[in-house]
Amino acid sequence: MNSILIKDIYLGGKSTDILIENNRISRVCEHIVLPPECRPDIIDGRGKAVIPGFANMHTHAAMTIMRGAKEDMSLHKWLESIWKLEEHLDDELVYWGTKLACVEMLKTGTTLFNDQYFFIESAVKAASQMGIRGAHSFVFIDLGDADKAMMQREACIKTYEESKNWGDTAIFEIGIHAAYTVCEENIIWACNFAAEHGLKVHIHIGETSQELQDCLRIHGCTPVEYLDRLGIFSPDIIAAHCIWLSDSDIQVLGRNKVNVAHNINSNLKLASGYKFKFQELVGAGVNVCLGTDGVASSNNLDIMETMKTTALVQKAWRKDPSAITLSQLIESATKNGYRAFSLEGGEIKEGMLADLSIIDIDNYSFTPNINFEANLVYSAHSDCIQTVICNGKIVMKDRYIAEEREILSQVRKLSRKLLLGQS
Amino acid sequence: MNSILIKDIYLGGKSTDILIENNRISRVCEHIVLPPECRPDIIDGRGKAVIPGFANMHTHAAMTIMRGAKEDMSLHKWLESIWKLEEHLDDELVYWGTKLACVEMLKTGTTLFNDQYFFIESAVKAASQMGIRGAHSFVFIDLGDADKAMMQREACIKTYEESKNWGDTAIFEIGIHAAYTVCEENIIWACNFAAEHGLKVHIHIGETSQELQDCLRIHGCTPVEYLDRLGIFSPDIIAAHCIWLSDSDIQVLGRNKVNVAHNINSNLKLASGYKFKFQELVGAGVNVCLGTDGVASSNNLDIMETMKTTALVQKAWRKDPSAITLSQLIESATKNGYRAFSLEGGEIKEGMLADLSIIDIDNYSFTPNINFEANLVYSAHSDCIQTVICNGKIVMKDRYIAEEREILSQVRKLSRKLLLGQS
Repeated sequence: MNSILIKDIYLGGKSTDILIENNRISRVCEHIVLPPECRPDIIDGRGKAVIPGFANMHTHAAMTIMRGAKEDMSLHKWLESIWKLEEHLDDELVYWGTKLACVEMLKTGTTLFNDQYFFIESAVKAASQMGIRGAHSFVFIDLGDADKAMMQREACIKTYEESKNWGDTAIFEIGIHAAYTVCEENIIWACNFAAEHGLKVHIHIGETSQELQDCLRIHGCTPVEYLDRLGIFSPDIIAAHCIWLSDSDIQVLGRNKVNVAHNINSNLKLASGYKFKFQELVGAGVNVCLGTDGVASSNNLDIMETMKTTALVQKAWRKDPSAITLSQLIESATKNGYRAFSLEGGEIKEGMLADLSIIDIDNYSFTPNINFEANLVYSAHSDCIQTVICNGKIVMKDRYIAEEREILSQVRKLSRKLLLGQS
Repeated sequence: MNSILIKDIYLGGKSTDILIENNRISRVCEHIVLPPECRPDIIDGRGKAVIPGFANMHTHAAMTIMRGAKEDMSLHKWLESIWKLEEHLDDELVYWGTKLACVEMLKTGTTLFNDQYFFIESAVKAASQMGIRGAHSFVFIDLGDADKAMMQREACIKTYEESKNWGDTAIFEIGIHAAYTVCEENIIWACNFAAEHGLKVHIHIGETSQELQDCLRIHGCTPVEYLDRLGIFSPDIIAAHCIWLSDSDIQVLGRNKVNVAHNINSNLKLASGYKFKFQELVGAGVNVCLGTDGVASSNNLDIMETMKTTALVQKAWRKDPSAITLSQLIESATKNGYRAFSLEGGEIKEGMLADLSIIDIDNYSFTPNINFEANLVYSAHSDCIQTVICNGKIVMKDRYIAEEREILSQVRKLSRKLLLGQS
């Protein structure tokens, strides 16, 4: 049996021991004594704290290969130039791009990510090799082309069958790009397929004002109302963005216990909108999670940074410094993501999946350490993340990831080719 | 002569050498060959880039001792509890608090900071020992008490005389807390004193809507109009915040070439306002700089983080992803701060003060490195800062600061006493 014993680590204001057996946290108590025949890996937790792994609930991982390529453009010009780059994607680019994303996510303490991109097999291979828990969407996007729509259904069935061999840390899910890029028939088919096979559905909703205006013009209702008429909402839906919602949209999402992934950095940087109704959504019954979106729009995959920006913007536009609490932020960045995938994780508690980070608190960001949560969210950066355990395995130890040098080198080579046309 | 030669470092898209002699950058060129008798300290710049030191143009450095102490409160309650803590300040708290601030600023690449706090001699001693360039305000704050006002004038003259022995890296300046906390007589006296002795004046203006409303009620005009009537504006004024300005206020500040320090994280977190008129101020002639404000309100002193939040919020509230450019951001975080103090610095150019950072770019945040500035502002965190040179001296080498352990330990002890009443 694979076991890890973390000794004398800071948790909830005091020092504790944590035992991990196989892929679960099996014990959390002040002083764990094991029988002599047990030989766990021992981690010295002194001067360190343990936090749950972060869940990045909306990203397009392989877009790391486009980091910084398109900046300071209007949304329309930016989208066009990204699409142009995406025409050149292939398995190799997605494989190495996803690997770089995994390096970055592990270094910033993320243990679960919700991906929606192309060349799914390459993304799964990359993430599984890195030992990070990934939910990979088979993406429906047909732009109303009936032939394409049919082909995607066939490919979806095939990929679903293949996904049975993906292994422990890869989750197959259905991706519906958005209500405006997937035909009604495919939205319904995909959601039925998901329900039949117990799969989650990952969809963009309410990202821009344009999307709302177009939907009102074409369907005479909001995107949420349109999708509600198709009967898709349930606790198995993970909706990214949800910036542009009416009060009644919020009620629909809440009544159906939908999961929403809020991506503040992307929404700010692309000027899509920022008045995310955090408390109203929570109040209505929505499970609010956090995401980074792809690196092409938000430039990094850092959920710690996302927690801080989320809080600052909520406080500012509400004109209320108490508009969001530290525990709400931390839960939205950790256990709410696990809950969206019906996983027992995102908390340091006995029985939970052993997805966690050991962080350095013997530094200026945590000095003084009167309020650990405030220091974590508002003062520290992700470089405090030292060691990451995912699914019971050490996937980063003292910031070292075995493959990192090779991944940086491959991405540099491929990006030069993609972005500058240089081989 | 003290000299440092940085070899093969990334600057402006190519590899270069940089020679520092005494406290200036004396040469920047591709390949510097020195005569054999020269024995500079050599720094290997491969895999690294050089950037100008950041200028944190508004802070209350010693407030590090209150990090995380007061969170998620309404502005009014927050202010009251901070003032209550400040009643207990003394030389020892300010000394160690400022030292911790200097550790944090050096670790995040700041080489110049503009401070406004109490126990100025202790702050000067702390900063000078750490080798960071600090501008220290003698703070006028009298709340209309004429005796206090007179005593402050006397103390100001005395401190000014003492400041002549402060040494190379400490700058004496006049601090006027704000128009609503300092009597007219003292504002005029302090600004005249500054003009007479060639000093800068550091003042809070337009931080909250309440301040604006009160001024309109009491003086029948905006704070800027009120201060303009007193004739204080000039290129020697450094005004912190300036969130609540009228169009005509902007013109007044621009016409007088005032320097403005924008503190977005503090403004967001305290819900003071966020619609900072960056482009209008620049257009009118204002020198826009960036600041963090004190740790009690913004929780850290990280100017890299401040650049990113500034950009995101400008883009968002303007509804324009091209609302601010990368070069504007970087200049506002570096050379504009030096310019405010009439210092030749904040740029990597021959003749400039040798205040700079060597940063690691051989990591995921800078991969790919198609757009260095975008990676610096939007992707990386301050842990990329490796080595900091201030006034020609290495003040942090490979993230090592000699006194750091002692400083953390002292602040922990003092904060426990201040915040929890434990000795």
